[in-house]
Amino acid sequence: MASLPVSPLAPAKFPDLPEISGVRLGAGAAGVKYQGRDDVMLVELAEGSVIAGVFTKSSTRSASVIDCQAKLGNDPTGKAAIFVNSGNSNAFTGAKGAESVSAICASVAKRIGCDQSRVFTSSTGVIGEPLPHDRILAVMDDIPLAQNGMEPAARAIMTTDTFAKGSVSRVKIDGTEITITGFAKGSGMIAPDMATMLVYIFTDAVIDQAMLQKIVSQANERTFNAITVDSDTSTSDTVLVAATCRAGNREITENDGFAQAIENVMQDLAHQVVKDGEGASKFVEVSVSGARDDIDARKVGLAIANSPLVKTAIAGEDPNWGRIVMAVGKSGAEADRDLLTIKFGDILVAEKGWVSESYTEQAGAEYFKQDNLIISVDLGLGTGAGRFWTCDLTHQYITINADYRS
Amino acid sequence: MASLPVSPLAPAKFPDLPEISGVRLGAGAAGVKYQGRDDVMLVELAEGSVIAGVFTKSSTRSASVIDCQAKLGNDPTGKAAIFVNSGNSNAFTGAKGAESVSAICASVAKRIGCDQSRVFTSSTGVIGEPLPHDRILAVMDDIPLAQNGMEPAARAIMTTDTFAKGSVSRVKIDGTEITITGFAKGSGMIAPDMATMLVYIFTDAVIDQAMLQKIVSQANERTFNAITVDSDTSTSDTVLVAATCRAGNREITENDGFAQAIENVMQDLAHQVVKDGEGASKFVEVSVSGARDDIDARKVGLAIANSPLVKTAIAGEDPNWGRIVMAVGKSGAEADRDLLTIKFGDILVAEKGWVSESYTEQAGAEYFKQDNLIISVDLGLGTGAGRFWTCDLTHQYITINADYRS
Repeated sequence: MASLPVSPLAPAKFPDLPEISGVRLGAGAAGVKYQGRDDVMLVELAEGSVIAGVFTKSSTRSASVIDCQAKLGNDPTGKAAIFVNSGNSNAFTGAKGAESVSAICASVAKRIGCDQSRVFTSSTGVIGEPLPHDRILAVMDDIPLAQNGMEPAARAIMTTDTFAKGSVSRVKIDGTEITITGFAKGSGMIAPDMATMLVYIFTDAVIDQAMLQKIVSQANERTFNAITVDSDTSTSDTVLVAATCRAGNREITENDGFAQAIENVMQDLAHQVVKDGEGASKFVEVSVSGARDDIDARKVGLAIANSPLVKTAIAGEDPNWGRIVMAVGKSGAEADRDLLTIKFGDILVAEKGWVSESYTEQAGAEYFKQDNLIISVDLGLGTGAGRFWTCDLTHQYITINADYRS
Repeated sequence: MASLPVSPLAPAKFPDLPEISGVRLGAGAAGVKYQGRDDVMLVELAEGSVIAGVFTKSSTRSASVIDCQAKLGNDPTGKAAIFVNSGNSNAFTGAKGAESVSAICASVAKRIGCDQSRVFTSSTGVIGEPLPHDRILAVMDDIPLAQNGMEPAARAIMTTDTFAKGSVSRVKIDGTEITITGFAKGSGMIAPDMATMLVYIFTDAVIDQAMLQKIVSQANERTFNAITVDSDTSTSDTVLVAATCRAGNREITENDGFAQAIENVMQDLAHQVVKDGEGASKFVEVSVSGARDDIDARKVGLAIANSPLVKTAIAGEDPNWGRIVMAVGKSGAEADRDLLTIKFGDILVAEKGWVSESYTEQAGAEYFKQDNLIISVDLGLGTGAGRFWTCDLTHQYITINADYRS
């Protein structure tokens, strides 16, 4: 698995992530499954930090997700912590799963000096095998903590990722600068590992938990909930956002630039997850407008973004607009063939129930040679709109998911 | 495209389809797109024949589907006819699409000597190009009609199919034998063709249209609506069932063996469509039980049957039960991890929230080497159940859909 080539869509390098006051973190090697690399990361969050989160909607979600969800609303008293291991997802492990989470939370609480109710954990990797948490407890006290530990932490949580994913954004609220940094892992799944999407974002902003949760939940709909690699949902998907409340800013409202800055980091990380999609060779934005409402726009956008026939056409650089029409038709959204407008970038492809008079197959084929594509669909019915991101479906996806054996 | 290898799951030969009293049919070569082969088929149905049908639910369905839907309830006066062309789907062709359907219906009505309101048409093939129906009208009078014309007709409507699909069933109602024969085409889609699923079934049964429609609609839910190759829905999917009312049987009710016999033919043809799924190397039954209701069973069954990660695991002969758990979790159906039971054939894989104590990876791997697999999931919640059929997702699927260029 370590031999997977780096995605051709990967950024040139991991970004320089600035330190966040009140955040110390680091990585360690517990040997949960992987050998010769870091596989655990620990984050210490200063007293009074508030934490927001969004999680997988899977009905078979993992023990650590259930534990995190129960703790989100807890009082921000004292320090808090986030702990993540890779190599084992602790999912579908029966009652033993919850026992492992408890044991890890107790160990983290002791190390950091915080209440167990303030410890958030995630696990990613093989499913159905008990998590050997003794190995984790054995190294807990040895994990170094430092303000500049972002990149090692980002690397420790990788499983089938071909590159580490980081992002940073800054915003001024009445002259007071706030910094937001984050990192993520996720690319798809690989037998028998489950490549959960995990995202950790940190900011020094002063903000209360309810407002942070609201901002994160709203941004999540337009970012991590608007991407798809293979339409499959992990049992462990987790986005945690921690604010240390150290920046000295005035009270933040949802209309401040802060919400946009958080969304920028979330969108950047979401895009990087798609760009590391298994076998991805093209990054595709599907932009939907003119739907009866936003719900219909989402149906159409995801029908296109998840269609194997659309995704294989993109892989083949084939501007096969008929497959877009098919995907709109099957989406379940209200649609009228004769009101549909389809564009590839700025190229008008189809309108009024038929291919556009100005469209040429050559122009479409030329456009599809690019690495970054925008497919726009206007349904001509209302004001519902949305943007969604996906990648193509290539031989490499099959190779990764069918040819590697457990 | 003609060079695609025959599916390894194909039956040894096309079945001997018996003649149906009141049905004459045949094939011809109109050169709509393909050269050197038949590409049109015509069916003459005796006076008083009744016709039932089910169609794609796509909101961008083709002109001929819309025309068929409008005609289904028409009085069974005089003869009736079915006409199909391959090579061009007449979908997304604007107002010209309806004009082509009208022109073809008028020509068929003249040839057969029936009312236009009794002519049903289908088109399958490339989309977005006007159907050159003049070529069809030019050969209309030359299409031979005979009672033994089933196989040539079945072959004339093939596009990317690698084998012709036929089925037969017989049933006795109070000593009177009724025969049902049918054929189908469909395998997936191929750039830029749209491999519509088309199904034509004929019987000599005496039955009224409403009862036939009811039986066909119900059987359709358990057959053609329970299969998936790539989760994509064509704009032209059509199932037409014609009864010539010549067998002399007493009135048929939905509880007679007739309904089961129709369903047998529909299920056989549905399975053959999956077995000709693009790149298919394994035929998979997903059997769901214990769901809260049948709707939830369907959600779970299709989530598994459509999951690229489940389908690639099957292609790789990898008994990756974690991906089944994942698919159950994302299905949207009510599920409780600790009540879930998963079996591969008779092998108990997982129960009570964890892998079964008796399960061995070796037993699972051995089972997955077979061509025909049964994956059973019991949710342990209620009496909802359903069976669904799919194939694996292989390199050949990508090759067919991405590597061939339009």
